[in-house]
Amino acid sequence: MTAMIRNLGELLHSNLHRDALKIVEAGLIAADPVKAIKDKVKLVNNKLVIDGYELSIDRGVKVLGLGKASAHMALGIEEVLGDLIIDGAVIIPKGTMPPDLRRIKVLYGSHPVPDGSSLNSTKELLKLAETREEGDVFIVLISGGGSALFEEPVDPIDLNDLRKTTSLLLRSGADIKEMNTVRKHISRVKGGRLAELLYPATTVSLILSDVVGDPVEFIASGPTAPDSTTYSDAVSILRRYGIWDLVPESVREVLSRGLRGELPETPKPGSPIFKKVFNVIVASNYLSLKAMEGVARRLGYNTLIVTSMMEGEAREVGKFIAGIIRNIKAYDEPVKRPAVLLMGGETTVTVRGSGVGGRNQELALSVAISIAGLDGVVFASIGSDGIDGVSDAAGAIVDGSTVIKGKDLGLNPFEALANNDSHNYLKKLKSVIYTGPTGTNVNDLSLAIVI
Amino acid sequence: MTAMIRNLGELLHSNLHRDALKIVEAGLIAADPVKAIKDKVKLVNNKLVIDGYELSIDRGVKVLGLGKASAHMALGIEEVLGDLIIDGAVIIPKGTMPPDLRRIKVLYGSHPVPDGSSLNSTKELLKLAETREEGDVFIVLISGGGSALFEEPVDPIDLNDLRKTTSLLLRSGADIKEMNTVRKHISRVKGGRLAELLYPATTVSLILSDVVGDPVEFIASGPTAPDSTTYSDAVSILRRYGIWDLVPESVREVLSRGLRGELPETPKPGSPIFKKVFNVIVASNYLSLKAMEGVARRLGYNTLIVTSMMEGEAREVGKFIAGIIRNIKAYDEPVKRPAVLLMGGETTVTVRGSGVGGRNQELALSVAISIAGLDGVVFASIGSDGIDGVSDAAGAIVDGSTVIKGKDLGLNPFEALANNDSHNYLKKLKSVIYTGPTGTNVNDLSLAIVI
Repeated sequence: MTAMIRNLGELLHSNLHRDALKIVEAGLIAADPVKAIKDKVKLVNNKLVIDGYELSIDRGVKVLGLGKASAHMALGIEEVLGDLIIDGAVIIPKGTMPPDLRRIKVLYGSHPVPDGSSLNSTKELLKLAETREEGDVFIVLISGGGSALFEEPVDPIDLNDLRKTTSLLLRSGADIKEMNTVRKHISRVKGGRLAELLYPATTVSLILSDVVGDPVEFIASGPTAPDSTTYSDAVSILRRYGIWDLVPESVREVLSRGLRGELPETPKPGSPIFKKVFNVIVASNYLSLKAMEGVARRLGYNTLIVTSMMEGEAREVGKFIAGIIRNIKAYDEPVKRPAVLLMGGETTVTVRGSGVGGRNQELALSVAISIAGLDGVVFASIGSDGIDGVSDAAGAIVDGSTVIKGKDLGLNPFEALANNDSHNYLKKLKSVIYTGPTGTNVNDLSLAIVI
Repeated sequence: MTAMIRNLGELLHSNLHRDALKIVEAGLIAADPVKAIKDKVKLVNNKLVIDGYELSIDRGVKVLGLGKASAHMALGIEEVLGDLIIDGAVIIPKGTMPPDLRRIKVLYGSHPVPDGSSLNSTKELLKLAETREEGDVFIVLISGGGSALFEEPVDPIDLNDLRKTTSLLLRSGADIKEMNTVRKHISRVKGGRLAELLYPATTVSLILSDVVGDPVEFIASGPTAPDSTTYSDAVSILRRYGIWDLVPESVREVLSRGLRGELPETPKPGSPIFKKVFNVIVASNYLSLKAMEGVARRLGYNTLIVTSMMEGEAREVGKFIAGIIRNIKAYDEPVKRPAVLLMGGETTVTVRGSGVGGRNQELALSVAISIAGLDGVVFASIGSDGIDGVSDAAGAIVDGSTVIKGKDLGLNPFEALANNDSHNYLKKLKSVIYTGPTGTNVNDLSLAIVI
């Protein structure tokens, strides 16, 4: 894999910047779908080897995929398994460019609200699933966006009902887990139902996680994962967000019948079908942070992974991170200098202004304000998908001089933050990182170097 | 020192709670002014011993003190030095109750805006200072609130001008460092000027820090510390906050004359007078965190001090801390379970509602929301002064069941947060910690236990 940061040259303000950007790239590379698959899945003596476990694949494998990264994951699996792949198809969003695949077909759907193409592509994937026989091995490639790309609603919910329900959920304020709890209970493929369909074949799901904390049952609504949620949870969520009366009658009917036990529940943890299912995370925020940690250590830094589950308003999280940086400067705690602090997850930006920015750039600007004047500190943050908020940048890299140089240019960092205009502020200071879309998403990756 | 938490009985929901509250108390005890002085200052063969340094005090010592904790610090120094104290006086806020002192006189001033009593008491302290001769040893006891209690403005600034300037600064949005930069340049006693007055006697300042990061030059406006700020900085700050034209003419005159070099600058780092000055932090947020760490280790926990310089909006900081807790649960990082995370500093609460609460209770409620349902986690946070915001509580202790129990009582944690009503919410769940005023202030102390 070549360097992923497009404007590396203009960002190398110091050796610390060079190190920080190397570490950032290590995080992006670890999240690359092709590399993630090839690192995790090996072919040894015609056996599939994952994390030391071996699986005989004498009869070949069939590949199903769903999600924004599934075509690139398919390329990775083709590179590992080659002609052992006897059939396969993946569903990616319309308008995205897949790599050239030799054996696995590329289908298209719509995201974040499913459309007819999502449903048609799902039917095609299910046809392939229905060929399953005892002794078969199915590899399922799962990544973010899969919930909308891969769907077949329970009768009598039709496409319009599904679209309306999805739109209501997206606008409701429900978080991804809550949304997917509802989705799992109006679907014939989510919440472990795909695993049910594939039984008694063996299912190996390779998962690229875009949900903070990597809960496999919520990533792409967990088509091959045991479902810990219930019809009752789904109804509670619709009521809690005040949309129970707004969703289509067909949705209320399905959930009500489910509640009354007239429809089967999704397969639960402990269900025997999961004895033949292996859900394996191949890329995640934490795995990217571990890769970044490895590079940081090789560069001679002491490292600390603070969290892979960072949440909170970006500008406030920035102040907290600056407080950790200052503590390291004063006391060599929580990690001794030269230190690299690693953080991942997904902060929030409450948009109040009309500027251009994103979570990572706003976080970086907030840190820059709080470390102004400090020597020997660099902070960088990047969206692993390469797109930070409404800007065309991936993230930003700042240091103790950023805000001071900004003042020299007549720029006010507080105004930029207040106007959600971090991008325009940081761009003028050559602090914005560009990668273009990376074809992956393991949320945001942040680090601070403190010497 | 006896247990400081008054309602310990009702808070012991589990063994983890017991441990957490023991650790909290260790932080409060370390910040206790009497204990802090006695732990730091020893009398060995009639020599004053501090951190291994020895100072001969054959001629006795004189004690000056300023700040909310200075009378209790005086009690500590009386207990160590006894009759070796030949004279002394401290200034505390009117309305606070001093301990019985044998040799050191208690004077009163006004806080946060100085009044005539502040100026009169300062004159009395300065009379004592003016007795200094080469070979004398002065012990200066410094704590928060000293800026308003100890003041003599530069001519021709009078009391009214001083009060007006202080009020303008307090309302301006300037932070404590910015406020004290201005104060230092209109004062005859701040910004190292007391050290100047005491020269060539030896000055030992014992400092209880209430400023995040413990910058001695800003604690009580640093009367015995080298001043890194200038007249020019003071003018910039008044202009930045739009109050240059609002402060009294006398203040503008003093600062303008200073700018033109017609008035001497405060003593700067490197000034020879500081060869005879020792500024020693005896209590601080970091020292309290270290004491808490010691107790946590004795209780069998792995520990990590995340920061002693915590800043940011309490409800957002809570989400970030919960992200660290969740990461420990998932990966045993940044510290292996059973783990104690320690954090200190001062978060912010932007008041939007009309409820009752404070920084620590709002932080605890935010953490409680984000850890709801998690087993084996307890989080506690307390204001070391014993008064959290507009409530009569010191802080709160929560766990993964707090919000769930709240729901059973029909309480909505999100509404409580939105209405800044954390106190009333947490009180109903027996999660509020009461200590009463502690007579000290090293900012806020927080910890999470994760098993």
